Amino acid sequence: MKQIFLIGAGRSVGSLISYLYNYSQTEKIHLTIGDKNLLHAEGLIKDFTHAKAIFFDVSDNEILKEEVKKADLVISMLPAHLHFSVAEMCVACGKHMLTASYVSSEILALGDQARSNRVKIIMEAGLDPGLDHMSAMAEINDIKEKGGKIVLFKSFTGGLIAPSDDTNPWNYKLTWNPRNVVLAGQGVTQFIRNNRYKYIPYNNLFNRVELIKVKGFGLFEGYANRDSLKYRELYDLGDIPTILRGTLRRTGFCKAWNVFVQLGMTDDTYQLASLNGMTYREFINSFLIYSDTLSVEEKVIEYFNLKPEGDVYKKLEWLGIFDNEKIGLTEGSPAMVLQELLELKWVLEPEDKDMVVMQHQFEYQIDKKMERVISSFVIIGADAKHTAMAKTVGLPLGILAKLILEDKLPVVGVHIPVVKEIYEPVLKELDKLGIRFKRELIKM
Amino acid sequence: MKQIFLIGAGRSVGSLISYLYNYSQTEKIHLTIGDKNLLHAEGLIKDFTHAKAIFFDVSDNEILKEEVKKADLVISMLPAHLHFSVAEMCVACGKHMLTASYVSSEILALGDQARSNRVKIIMEAGLDPGLDHMSAMAEINDIKEKGGKIVLFKSFTGGLIAPSDDTNPWNYKLTWNPRNVVLAGQGVTQFIRNNRYKYIPYNNLFNRVELIKVKGFGLFEGYANRDSLKYRELYDLGDIPTILRGTLRRTGFCKAWNVFVQLGMTDDTYQLASLNGMTYREFINSFLIYSDTLSVEEKVIEYFNLKPEGDVYKKLEWLGIFDNEKIGLTEGSPAMVLQELLELKWVLEPEDKDMVVMQHQFEYQIDKKMERVISSFVIIGADAKHTAMAKTVGLPLGILAKLILEDKLPVVGVHIPVVKEIYEPVLKELDKLGIRFKRELIKM
Repeated sequence: MKQIFLIGAGRSVGSLISYLYNYSQTEKIHLTIGDKNLLHAEGLIKDFTHAKAIFFDVSDNEILKEEVKKADLVISMLPAHLHFSVAEMCVACGKHMLTASYVSSEILALGDQARSNRVKIIMEAGLDPGLDHMSAMAEINDIKEKGGKIVLFKSFTGGLIAPSDDTNPWNYKLTWNPRNVVLAGQGVTQFIRNNRYKYIPYNNLFNRVELIKVKGFGLFEGYANRDSLKYRELYDLGDIPTILRGTLRRTGFCKAWNVFVQLGMTDDTYQLASLNGMTYREFINSFLIYSDTLSVEEKVIEYFNLKPEGDVYKKLEWLGIFDNEKIGLTEGSPAMVLQELLELKWVLEPEDKDMVVMQHQFEYQIDKKMERVISSFVIIGADAKHTAMAKTVGLPLGILAKLILEDKLPVVGVHIPVVKEIYEPVLKELDKLGIRFKRELIKM
Repeated sequence: MKQIFLIGAGRSVGSLISYLYNYSQTEKIHLTIGDKNLLHAEGLIKDFTHAKAIFFDVSDNEILKEEVKKADLVISMLPAHLHFSVAEMCVACGKHMLTASYVSSEILALGDQARSNRVKIIMEAGLDPGLDHMSAMAEINDIKEKGGKIVLFKSFTGGLIAPSDDTNPWNYKLTWNPRNVVLAGQGVTQFIRNNRYKYIPYNNLFNRVELIKVKGFGLFEGYANRDSLKYRELYDLGDIPTILRGTLRRTGFCKAWNVFVQLGMTDDTYQLASLNGMTYREFINSFLIYSDTLSVEEKVIEYFNLKPEGDVYKKLEWLGIFDNEKIGLTEGSPAMVLQELLELKWVLEPEDKDMVVMQHQFEYQIDKKMERVISSFVIIGADAKHTAMAKTVGLPLGILAKLILEDKLPVVGVHIPVVKEIYEPVLKELDKLGIRFKRELIKM
């Protein structure tokens, strides 16, 4: 019986486990889930015939070794910085490993040893990173194979709320890690457009959005996402003149979010000196000029040149940032206070459906003419437990697990799914499960 | 003969050495200068009867030990992060030490041992930090002694160019570390005003200036400088409702500088991917939106809503940021490129005189009435070698050296000059040398 050791059972693990459960109905597999929350892990395996849950702390190297040795495949859903010790152990014990996290240079350096031990370490195998790589590379290789020269590649992804449950003026609810939502875009953003390198500092990022239309789902806005330049190499796009990766929100989100960015309310680098007993109103006021005559609202309206009846002001007001409510934290950074408020207001209710949207745009020259391909997918979740986010993170991992256990993945070493041997069978299986991109070809 | 070991002979050391030279004419002292640039160090001591220059690298613990053992007093002019090993050695060997750098928690932790070894470690004993502490504390203690309750303390310092040599539209030349000029204000700025805590992120800092008048020298603008809150404790100001420390520039500087800040051109956290062969025009363009129709100048004018004949545009143009000149660096961060340009344009010419400006503002209640004290000083340098900056950094250190060698400083342990025993004799001696604050008392 094939043994899977799944480490970390956080909120995006549901669909992966369902997929493994279905697989266990036809193939003999045994699943071990290791988590700090044993009760939660036990709940996840209750339907399985062959499974166990164990208390697991990644710092306990003895148990890690013991469990890795027993396993054929390790799937790590731990936070990104904890993967290395697991990867190291897998390579040493000759066991395969899967994660949805970004590969680190530390883990890349295990490549030679992994290859000589015939170990497969597949990283960045969830949604973003994961499905973004696979779907983009399938298109890129298609265009190249038919002789096209790609001159533009843009790719946007967003974790959003489905139209049916889009009930607040931000058109946004928290469908994934709230801390990452608050900190999104910090640091510099770099890309290239018509051979011009472009750098956007955080304070300009939410000013410089572009409109994106997704057929059947209306308009979105996309803001550039960190380092797009590295994807030239990663996707073998050489000296492509335009490359940009971005994040999607509903239109109007960024202009309102930018108020928090401009005022410094997403800063996570220092602790507020004045938090104890503070209200949200006092919180936003501490980032505004002092005035004996203007109200907090008037200062915001004046500073950002807002209309009191306009969309931005309505969003801010709805969030309760001007309210005399006490903040539920006694210490923390501005980002932590904002997160605390957002977690109260942007709640994904039990029946709410989330929505994952991805769109790739390509322009390429072929037979001396230009063509454009727009390749989009939208996945809607079932409810707050069975989210589109969990599905699109979990299914690629599940499919890869199956492929590895059945010895149908002809690669060894450390990889991300940009090679055909990996992405082709995954996309094929996803298609069977109804997860597929809609493709539009436009002759220009 | 008393022995002084001076470590690091950078550009602010001239006045200190002149002071020590004058002192050596009446008292028997021997000066050892240790520097990585032996020739430069030798040049500095050529007038002294009893002095030597040695090659010195702070990582060489053997020589450090040898020289510290021989010395009665060590003056460290090294970069701030290198002071600790010197301080540790001084405490271990029972030798006194002086620096103009901020005290670190590491060095503070040496306090007990320093006290039991009867060692005096005086940090923050230059201009800012240094003279700012001393002059502010003298005023604060005066006000308290006559029964005043301080409700407002603001303090501004600037290293600027003297009016006689103020020859460019920025009204600014590089009179101190250019890297610090480019990076000034990064991180969060915090202060308190009328009992309201205020936090300003870097991207708003240069928008929120206040006008400062210094009698006889016209108008300046001040922007808030990092953490003003800690001075409540440092200066024993308890729960003072308003405290702000700031940096001075000539009026109009901040609005133009803010263009670079907003565009991300002062960012030192990443390397530009595109620097090799780049011009300054391409450099600024890489922070602007892409446009097929607008020129670089038009994009800046549009983005910042500038007047083409206005002051901000004139400053930018004068700097050559729109020129097709090649950048003299092949790799570096945006901040490094900007610094390279500023070092070409904001040169302090050999005959140029710099100017140090400091102003403290106090408001206090006394006998149920309010009074305001404004205490300002302006020091003009002699030329680019004998700067006001070097003088105001070096003289407090020189005076403290003398006081320590003559055993007239009745403190032991790690200190900054906020206590009367330290600041009183220093201010008295500075007064004799013509460095004094002009005081204005206003009954409100």
